[in-house]
Amino acid sequence: MSTVLALSGGVGGAKLVHGLAQVLPAEQLVVCCNTGDDFTHVGQHVCPDIDTVLYTLSGLANPELGWGRADETWHFMDTMAVLGGETWFRLGDADLAMHVVRSQALAAGQSISAITADLARRLGVAPTIAPMSDQPVSTIVLTPDGELAFQHYFVRERCAPVVTGFRFEGAAAAKPAPAVAATLGDPKLRAILFCPSNPYVSLGPILAVKDIAAALARRRAPAIAVSPIVGGVAIKGPAAKMMAELGQEVSATAVARLLRPYIDGFVIDDTDADQADGIRSMGLKVEVAPTVMRNTADKRALAEAMLAFADRMRTA
Amino acid sequence: MSTVLALSGGVGGAKLVHGLAQVLPAEQLVVCCNTGDDFTHVGQHVCPDIDTVLYTLSGLANPELGWGRADETWHFMDTMAVLGGETWFRLGDADLAMHVVRSQALAAGQSISAITADLARRLGVAPTIAPMSDQPVSTIVLTPDGELAFQHYFVRERCAPVVTGFRFEGAAAAKPAPAVAATLGDPKLRAILFCPSNPYVSLGPILAVKDIAAALARRRAPAIAVSPIVGGVAIKGPAAKMMAELGQEVSATAVARLLRPYIDGFVIDDTDADQADGIRSMGLKVEVAPTVMRNTADKRALAEAMLAFADRMRTA
Repeated sequence: MSTVLALSGGVGGAKLVHGLAQVLPAEQLVVCCNTGDDFTHVGQHVCPDIDTVLYTLSGLANPELGWGRADETWHFMDTMAVLGGETWFRLGDADLAMHVVRSQALAAGQSISAITADLARRLGVAPTIAPMSDQPVSTIVLTPDGELAFQHYFVRERCAPVVTGFRFEGAAAAKPAPAVAATLGDPKLRAILFCPSNPYVSLGPILAVKDIAAALARRRAPAIAVSPIVGGVAIKGPAAKMMAELGQEVSATAVARLLRPYIDGFVIDDTDADQADGIRSMGLKVEVAPTVMRNTADKRALAEAMLAFADRMRTA
Repeated sequence: MSTVLALSGGVGGAKLVHGLAQVLPAEQLVVCCNTGDDFTHVGQHVCPDIDTVLYTLSGLANPELGWGRADETWHFMDTMAVLGGETWFRLGDADLAMHVVRSQALAAGQSISAITADLARRLGVAPTIAPMSDQPVSTIVLTPDGELAFQHYFVRERCAPVVTGFRFEGAAAAKPAPAVAATLGDPKLRAILFCPSNPYVSLGPILAVKDIAAALARRRAPAIAVSPIVGGVAIKGPAAKMMAELGQEVSATAVARLLRPYIDGFVIDDTDADQADGIRSMGLKVEVAPTVMRNTADKRALAEAMLAFADRMRTA
């Protein structure tokens, strides 16, 4: 009963992973990162969610921006503007090295799994950080005006277009990354934790990989999620806007309903305690806890609460 | 009698081009840059000699390093080192944008000619800056221990290996770039100026493009060169070392002998005035002038001296 698998998307996911990394030995934590956001930009292969986890665990993350590195400089980007290059997706001078090294390794035939493991080692990140898949899966946002690649929707259009649905290009052919498959199949798996990430575009691509969904369906370890919606708003990002546009109630309860097929338990914030009974009526165990992670202590406390919740479910 | 074509390699070439740009209207100056040094590094297409000219003419050049940009930062490179990327060829944060923009445009099917023209326009460089060819030509340095790609010899190995010869891969299939071909064929061509660049690895690749050599052979405009060897040493770079290793005398006279098939006149430094008669005996006109360019006035004076020399030859 030793390994914990965390499914993680963007900033919220990385925060919980940071908490887990503080309370678990490194060899007991495997992080499955969403790669549906990945794209090729100015010729470089960018993996935003993997990098957010790597930067957060290595202490390099920029806490103000919520992406990229602290103490970043922008001379490359400033010069791109002078030269007529694309500037809508900002790559810092130091951050750019990640994408250049990754792109070179990809071109040399290495897998995203191998590349991520090497980058993690170079940055002193000890837990296993894995992509959900080594095959490309691209999140496409459906809008009334047509389809948008995820970063075009998210960064270039600042989430302004109305969302009518999603498509995960390549998901049908994608296999779970080796570390993810091995962890899901590990008889000593202690818990599967869904980080407080956007259910559509952070967890959605992971669940669109059929063999991951299938392994979750036959899980023996408890799977628990934590709501990214607190008090009817998203802690960060477009989750609430998307839910509203898709005709969903914007609530922890609605997130629980979306994830219901994959989980046994659901963690909601103290603010949403009045939704506990409704969520229990779906057949889920519910834990009420402080879920907003403002600092390191918050992250650690939520990680501990989720692990304790999972362990109680196992022995119940 | 209006256009001047300058054949340019590295730093010495860019200095004379800078002088020419001060004394000629922009529309009368066409610079044919060596692209034998070009290579793909960390996935980016780098054109060192084109960039040296662009940076010099735009006032961005780093006068201390002799390459790259002034006021450069190195956060990309520092992070490459942390991540295990290649660091032997240093790319500054701002400089990197040139290579990324160029690589993207190349991948989109643009020619080096078109890309260089666009970069020049973006940097406010008005004279025509052209590659010698839009087809790739790669300078290979032959050594007793085998072949070395030029930048591996020049930067990684710091010119330490003994040189036994050169090979210009791709030269047989390379055509002159459109601007170079048009200028060589222009009946109003005023002069062809060989900048004080390494005769083997700066001018050599240009002359290895057959249609350039053929156009030079049937030239009607005077072609004059200036010696990069002054007082038996190279002003910059490995020219003197190469000459010695190839069994040549290290002198202006020896450079004149190498370039003899392509030129009508040769400019030597005051220091080497005693070689004038010997060079004249090869059938070349000789001009003795200060050729060491320490500042803007020196560059301008040499440019004016070369143009006056060429004009005198025309009317003689």
